[in-house]
Amino acid sequence: MTDPVTTPAVPRRTAVRGGLVITATEELRADVLIEGERIAALAATGSEAALSWTADTVIDAAGHYVIPGGVDVHTHMELPFGGTHASDTFETGTRAAAWGGTTTIVDFAVQPVGGSLREGLDAWHAKADGNCAIDYAFHTIVSDVTDAVLKEMDTLVDSGESTSFKLFMAYPGVFYSDDGRILRAMQRAAANGGMIMMHAENGIAIDVLVEQALAAGRTAPRHHGEVRRELLEAEATHRAIRLAQVAGSPLYVVHVSAASALAELARARDDGHPVFGETCPQYLFLSTDDLAEEGDDGFEGAKYVCSTPLRPREHQAALWRGLRTNDLQVVSTDHCPFCYTGQKELGRGDFSKIPNGLPGVENRMDLLHQAVVDGHLSRRRWIELACTTPARMFGLHPRKGTLAPGADADVVVYDPTAVQTVAAATHHMNVDYSAYEGRTLTGRARTVLSRGTVVLDHGTWLGRPGHGTFLRRDTCQYLG
Amino acid sequence: MTDPVTTPAVPRRTAVRGGLVITATEELRADVLIEGERIAALAATGSEAALSWTADTVIDAAGHYVIPGGVDVHTHMELPFGGTHASDTFETGTRAAAWGGTTTIVDFAVQPVGGSLREGLDAWHAKADGNCAIDYAFHTIVSDVTDAVLKEMDTLVDSGESTSFKLFMAYPGVFYSDDGRILRAMQRAAANGGMIMMHAENGIAIDVLVEQALAAGRTAPRHHGEVRRELLEAEATHRAIRLAQVAGSPLYVVHVSAASALAELARARDDGHPVFGETCPQYLFLSTDDLAEEGDDGFEGAKYVCSTPLRPREHQAALWRGLRTNDLQVVSTDHCPFCYTGQKELGRGDFSKIPNGLPGVENRMDLLHQAVVDGHLSRRRWIELACTTPARMFGLHPRKGTLAPGADADVVVYDPTAVQTVAAATHHMNVDYSAYEGRTLTGRARTVLSRGTVVLDHGTWLGRPGHGTFLRRDTCQYLG
Amino acid sequence: MTDPVTTPAVPRRTAVRGGLVITATEELRADVLIEGERIAALAATGSEAALSWTADTVIDAAGHYVIPGGVDVHTHMELPFGGTHASDTFETGTRAAAWGGTTTIVDFAVQPVGGSLREGLDAWHAKADGNCAIDYAFHTIVSDVTDAVLKEMDTLVDSGESTSFKLFMAYPGVFYSDDGRILRAMQRAAANGGMIMMHAENGIAIDVLVEQALAAGRTAPRHHGEVRRELLEAEATHRAIRLAQVAGSPLYVVHVSAASALAELARARDDGHPVFGETCPQYLFLSTDDLAEEGDDGFEGAKYVCSTPLRPREHQAALWRGLRTNDLQVVSTDHCPFCYTGQKELGRGDFSKIPNGLPGVENRMDLLHQAVVDGHLSRRRWIELACTTPARMFGLHPRKGTLAPGADADVVVYDPTAVQTVAAATHHMNVDYSAYEGRTLTGRARTVLSRGTVVLDHGTWLGRPGHGTFLRRDTCQYLG
Amino acid sequence: MTDPVTTPAVPRRTAVRGGLVITATEELRADVLIEGERIAALAATGSEAALSWTADTVIDAAGHYVIPGGVDVHTHMELPFGGTHASDTFETGTRAAAWGGTTTIVDFAVQPVGGSLREGLDAWHAKADGNCAIDYAFHTIVSDVTDAVLKEMDTLVDSGESTSFKLFMAYPGVFYSDDGRILRAMQRAAANGGMIMMHAENGIAIDVLVEQALAAGRTAPRHHGEVRRELLEAEATHRAIRLAQVAGSPLYVVHVSAASALAELARARDDGHPVFGETCPQYLFLSTDDLAEEGDDGFEGAKYVCSTPLRPREHQAALWRGLRTNDLQVVSTDHCPFCYTGQKELGRGDFSKIPNGLPGVENRMDLLHQAVVDGHLSRRRWIELACTTPARMFGLHPRKGTLAPGADADVVVYDPTAVQTVAAATHHMNVDYSAYEGRTLTGRARTVLSRGTVVLDHGTWLGRPGHGTFLRRDTCQYLG
Ligand SMILES: [Zn+2]
Ligand SMILES: [Zn+2]
Ligand SMILES: [Zn+2]
Ligand SMILES: [Zn+2]
Ligand SMILES: [Zn+2]
Ligand SMILES: [Zn+2]
Ligand SMILES: [Zn+2]
Ligand SMILES: [Zn+2]
Repeated sequence: MTDPVTTPAVPRRTAVRGGLVITATEELRADVLIEGERIAALAATGSEAALSWTADTVIDAAGHYVIPGGVDVHTHMELPFGGTHASDTFETGTRAAAWGGTTTIVDFAVQPVGGSLREGLDAWHAKADGNCAIDYAFHTIVSDVTDAVLKEMDTLVDSGESTSFKLFMAYPGVFYSDDGRILRAMQRAAANGGMIMMHAENGIAIDVLVEQALAAGRTAPRHHGEVRRELLEAEATHRAIRLAQVAGSPLYVVHVSAASALAELARARDDGHPVFGETCPQYLFLSTDDLAEEGDDGFEGAKYVCSTPLRPREHQAALWRGLRTNDLQVVSTDHCPFCYTGQKELGRGDFSKIPNGLPGVENRMDLLHQAVVDGHLSRRRWIELACTTPARMFGLHPRKGTLAPGADADVVVYDPTAVQTVAAATHHMNVDYSAYEGRTLTGRARTVLSRGTVVLDHGTWLGRPGHGTFLRRDTCQYLG
Repeated sequence: MTDPVTTPAVPRRTAVRGGLVITATEELRADVLIEGERIAALAATGSEAALSWTADTVIDAAGHYVIPGGVDVHTHMELPFGGTHASDTFETGTRAAAWGGTTTIVDFAVQPVGGSLREGLDAWHAKADGNCAIDYAFHTIVSDVTDAVLKEMDTLVDSGESTSFKLFMAYPGVFYSDDGRILRAMQRAAANGGMIMMHAENGIAIDVLVEQALAAGRTAPRHHGEVRRELLEAEATHRAIRLAQVAGSPLYVVHVSAASALAELARARDDGHPVFGETCPQYLFLSTDDLAEEGDDGFEGAKYVCSTPLRPREHQAALWRGLRTNDLQVVSTDHCPFCYTGQKELGRGDFSKIPNGLPGVENRMDLLHQAVVDGHLSRRRWIELACTTPARMFGLHPRKGTLAPGADADVVVYDPTAVQTVAAATHHMNVDYSAYEGRTLTGRARTVLSRGTVVLDHGTWLGRPGHGTFLRRDTCQYLG
Repeated sequence: MTDPVTTPAVPRRTAVRGGLVITATEELRADVLIEGERIAALAATGSEAALSWTADTVIDAAGHYVIPGGVDVHTHMELPFGGTHASDTFETGTRAAAWGGTTTIVDFAVQPVGGSLREGLDAWHAKADGNCAIDYAFHTIVSDVTDAVLKEMDTLVDSGESTSFKLFMAYPGVFYSDDGRILRAMQRAAANGGMIMMHAENGIAIDVLVEQALAAGRTAPRHHGEVRRELLEAEATHRAIRLAQVAGSPLYVVHVSAASALAELARARDDGHPVFGETCPQYLFLSTDDLAEEGDDGFEGAKYVCSTPLRPREHQAALWRGLRTNDLQVVSTDHCPFCYTGQKELGRGDFSKIPNGLPGVENRMDLLHQAVVDGHLSRRRWIELACTTPARMFGLHPRKGTLAPGADADVVVYDPTAVQTVAAATHHMNVDYSAYEGRTLTGRARTVLSRGTVVLDHGTWLGRPGHGTFLRRDTCQYLG
Repeated sequence: MTDPVTTPAVPRRTAVRGGLVITATEELRADVLIEGERIAALAATGSEAALSWTADTVIDAAGHYVIPGGVDVHTHMELPFGGTHASDTFETGTRAAAWGGTTTIVDFAVQPVGGSLREGLDAWHAKADGNCAIDYAFHTIVSDVTDAVLKEMDTLVDSGESTSFKLFMAYPGVFYSDDGRILRAMQRAAANGGMIMMHAENGIAIDVLVEQALAAGRTAPRHHGEVRRELLEAEATHRAIRLAQVAGSPLYVVHVSAASALAELARARDDGHPVFGETCPQYLFLSTDDLAEEGDDGFEGAKYVCSTPLRPREHQAALWRGLRTNDLQVVSTDHCPFCYTGQKELGRGDFSKIPNGLPGVENRMDLLHQAVVDGHLSRRRWIELACTTPARMFGLHPRKGTLAPGADADVVVYDPTAVQTVAAATHHMNVDYSAYEGRTLTGRARTVLSRGTVVLDHGTWLGRPGHGTFLRRDTCQYLG
């Protein structure tokens, strides 16, 4: 950030000058003018129009990319799980997100079994409100499909408080819904325009395999990956697609990790069904090799326990291809950190007791930029996967996910040549390890604006808890 | 066009105000500022930035769409074919294009058999230069793959004069290349970055069926559709894909008309191959029912003779689906008009002598807008298919195909509520019939700018031959 | 039957002379020699070998086919269902089978929920033993997968009392098993060599649709077909395949009725998985048109209520194709008759209360011969689908399903030119209607032998209850 | 052969006793009675019927299999190719076949370019007649599709002299037919009931790659495999299928070697098209590893040069799976031996001059039995692939390919436990190397009968040139 003439809470006019503006479809030599919290204009760098701007603040982006702030539509701050809770609060988690160039998260408010969606949302608002460094929104996890809940879904879509509803085919006894409940929820979404998100693993079958593995003494972290069979992800993915077809609803499958599950999505998409898929950096960069790590105490693999699980290395190529062919549309993190010490350790001697989840909200934008460097993705596809499509998918566009007049001024000045080494010692997530420890990445956010306010600049944190506001949302832009 | 304060050859500054700006990914309430021939800035309507603009000319777009000018990457002005030539000159054809909201065409320069690509391009430059109302570029039709021609391909890609090369699997003895020649050309494109375009029909087999049909007295226009079997389009499409895989080159299949050919493209795309497909309005809106029309003289179907031929009505749904799933990426016209009287009539009594081709360059944008009205496509997909992707596919982006700072000011103010009835009597193409005669369409270009100059406004032609300039091109943006 | 020199209970030597012997792979002019209950020899008609035979009984088969007796591996005699029971006893049902040229049935012994497989088998032995006109065997319906039941499965496979186990993905609260129970049973079958048979419909989802249909007043028989959605058969079929892959077990899907379910089987078979499918005459010859029949009382469609339900007519072509391509291997009847009066009527005003099932055990061989006449199948494929493969699939071969030295002398002399009109008034099944009433069929069994004994000849019943014996079985011949 | 009471030229009655009779569908403990040249009867071993037989000769088959003689439908004895000719004459080649348990071959009579099919057949009759140890038939290679040739096809089908016609998509300038000629021949076959056999490789494209490889100095045998790209086999296979669909003819693709080509066949078969595929032992047991062998003189790989070429080892699993799923129906040899010394050597320094072909007619039955031992195939599938289906496919059934009353008495008593080591030093083919040198196989023909005459017994050759007769054929049994 150069030359801050004055610095009000929100500068009235900020100009970001001289960078390469990258959106999902464009690469432009353009300056960006921010008025208040919104982008007012883009103008060709050096044009009369650009030169005529007066600005309170001018940010020099020469030699940098100017990109929309990242949109991470799958995080779990403070999630209660397996007797503990995810170690990032909304305060620490959203700050870490911003450090990594992400300026919007969509977290999941959990309906308590026997309770209402309202109760879940109230609880999550209580955790988040006043604490977030960046803007945030909520999906709703539907744990218990009742007639009352179906009516609540309508209300939430109407008000925009939550226009997407997550169901689980896994975790019987916790989040699990049977196919009848799933069908009812899908029918409701078909009617009210909401999106159905699905954790697609056949949890009923998996639990049989878990029980058999434990009974046979196969208790180490790597067995978590072995019992959660790829075929059971493919199966559940296909089932979810068919149920959505019966209901006439759209479907968004979260954390796709298996090539065969992806193939089911591709098949349905070829037939024109409104079926979508997300994958996460851990499935693109990590594998069962990590899960099988023993480390000093034979238990290091626990750091890599998440569900769907990491898969054999061969799956990575299929996922990269899916991202290029648009059979996968979104990369989010499923950020759900648990400390190795004290939390992951709950599952020593019984992999089924290891809290499921990995930290990642801070690393996503950079890992995907590394994929650009490595030739997996183009620059525009990077922005599309990490910013634009997530925003359009979940009704945050055109406020989020793009750089365009009228959009929120969530702007990242990104240094494509900066080199960093990922490490728990230096990251900003509240967790005692990094899933990418020691990995060298090229590219890093230099300056981050949230709704027109600089929250990070040249490695200095300028943000504050409570700057982030709750976002009401429209419905998916990819339907009809 | 409201309030033209002054009207220089090119107004220095033009502001298009108050419209809904639609691009491939955005829908914005924004004003567009043009400086000279380029777009200088977009600003949120009503923002300080927008209000501060001074402009020589202000165009009121309230209640209208503001869209990029259409890019039609498949036209044949003045094409010699079957002893006659296409009835639109570059002058009449480009003027008609602009009437229909299209501001860029890419036509095909034909290598004479035994000659060089250079000769073909020289001939086409001679026809076009100084005559076009809008900007234009050339693909090259390679009729004769020799070592010298392969070297010319490198030169043309380097200079940008022609970065795409069309080959024919049909028309033995005319444009036809055998698989060995095709493979050589593809290998060269793989090396120099060029795009291979393919007319994918098995012409060798078709000619057998043609001969048999004529020998059996099946001579009417509808037999043209019967002998050019769908399976032989699917076959050739698959073959072209495999040859491209062997060569490592990209492939763009022109005028896809058959569901089974589309399925071959979808299969290859699922596997991650750089394979692309175009369809045309005639395949979306017309069918073998039209080809079977007898009319007063039993020969009306000749108006609908083109190759690939019109298909049974059932194929339309597959094509619309392919456009939505992105298994087809471009809609162009294959505009190649021949008058019914005197030209189509050459094939009376022998369908194989009917000149192949339909008029359409003027109708494309409106027919596709009608598809928006009918629910086949979203507004953004309309722009993507008709403007953005064609430009990105053939190296015209970011000058063409989008509305962004730095782009050429090819801007259309589109009235989405205007109702028109298509008719030969009122169209501007130089041909004595319309393939869409009597069809009512909702939507029409009201004001059209080419490189900052208004060429059409409220039904008044303001353009001139020679305004259009020849465009050098980059290579495809969808590779690597 | 010509010239019965003597007629002991079982003639010591019977010669069937002069017919065209048809098996799954051969069509031979051969005589068949029976010694006691077994086929002793086949010899070329007119050969010295054939001429040298002496026989107590000579059956003249000139102008007729000589084929193996039919093997119907899916019947439900006296099945308790929905508060009533199937109207054919083992006595009436097996007699009707023999009239129709079927000489072996495999029925289903039902494990009572909370009880053992043993109890189910004991109950079914009590119904069948001493009452059957032809040989019979039992599959076991597993209603309740417990550790004890899994051990019983081993015992039954070892003893051959039942080497196949049927599970239901439909009928929650009755026969339904969840995916965990299914997986456990499949794992056991993988270990002990047994076959898993599956009723593949997603009953959990269907029950939601049933409830919604009834609540909306959609209570007529045709709504039975509408709620049991094709997609939910395809879904369950896919799920069963994936679970079988996880378990490493074979899978036999019963009563495949939907083209999309068949496509799932074909896909798995292409990949080399041991997955098999059966369809039934009702899906080949009837459709939702029948289910929608109103008749005099608006309720005639009830005659056609079975599950999986009849499908729209278009599915028939896919099923015939599947029979030809061997993606379907068996045609059985799922014979489960309920009288229209008094039984089907239980569902007046509520389709979900109509007992599910159709009569057919007497009609199968003739309907399939009609398919030969109509050009759907070859003669050998007829025998393969109706006799040989069912026997090999369920471990009855080489005793049943073929004509070969050493096989049981279950022999049918079939008149391929006899014309019959199907009618409840003349059929031998104990049910007051025919699903094929009034249909004219060409072909009919003239003489039927069961283990060397003539039970039917020229329209005269010569059999007796108790002739039929219980068959122990080997495991499937199509594995490994 | 035990106890030859008398030995006339053809014993009047021979009994083969005590073996396990294996056919495509049965495994029987049965005795086989031969009268003259035909099988008269099969009777259960130990039955009165069997015991009552009197026989001139009794062959003891206890502990052995009794199987139909092998049917090899793809051999090239004395084929002129590349300036030399295949090293086995009909005399040496058919004798070697019998040593290996094969009792029928179908060879290819080649139409001379510019000549008639008749000339080709006359030439081949001249080579074969009076020289063969076993029965033989001819396919016709159509090198030049003219109107006169199309008429000849009708005649040959009618007379049964040749009911199958092979065309080449490879070898331009030699056997190659373009797609128009192929289509015409297919149309004719569709009309007259003949079978079209296809060498499916895109020879036009391959020749470009050959020329490029040689120009680049890639001249060693392994480059033969590299230029004949798998994708170009898949392409041609697909093209042949589509052309056959257009013509309405059946199609039999010879020597399928690539997984992707097989996938095209499977896709077409799933759709119900009459498309068939053959593979050969070399594709199942050898790979590009062999082709890359250098040996002492750097040229050993030449021994493994054939077309389609050997493929990477991974393809073997796909081919075995295809044989199990019946997407491939036949295993023949494409026996076409050239001596290493003096023949294969013609291509030293230029792989394109190496005569294409491998010896194998003697090894096929044993290699496939080894596959039974190794668990790739069941015993019945072995017989089906090697005997029954080839005979039914090409109209030789029921005379050949099975053991049934009325069939020719081509009977092999096979010792399933005999162990042999394959070696050029001991084989009976007239060629100086073995493609399977040093390989140990379990299983071997002990006694071989051709039309009732023992030609091989316990390692003693008893046959004679001229015993074998020419076979007229019906059309394919798998159509309609
Ligand atoms: Zn999650
Ligand atoms: Zn064309
Ligand atoms: Zn796709
Ligand atoms: Zn064209
Ligand atoms: Zn049943
Ligand atoms: Zn060949
Ligand atoms: Zn298949
Ligand atoms: Zn050959």
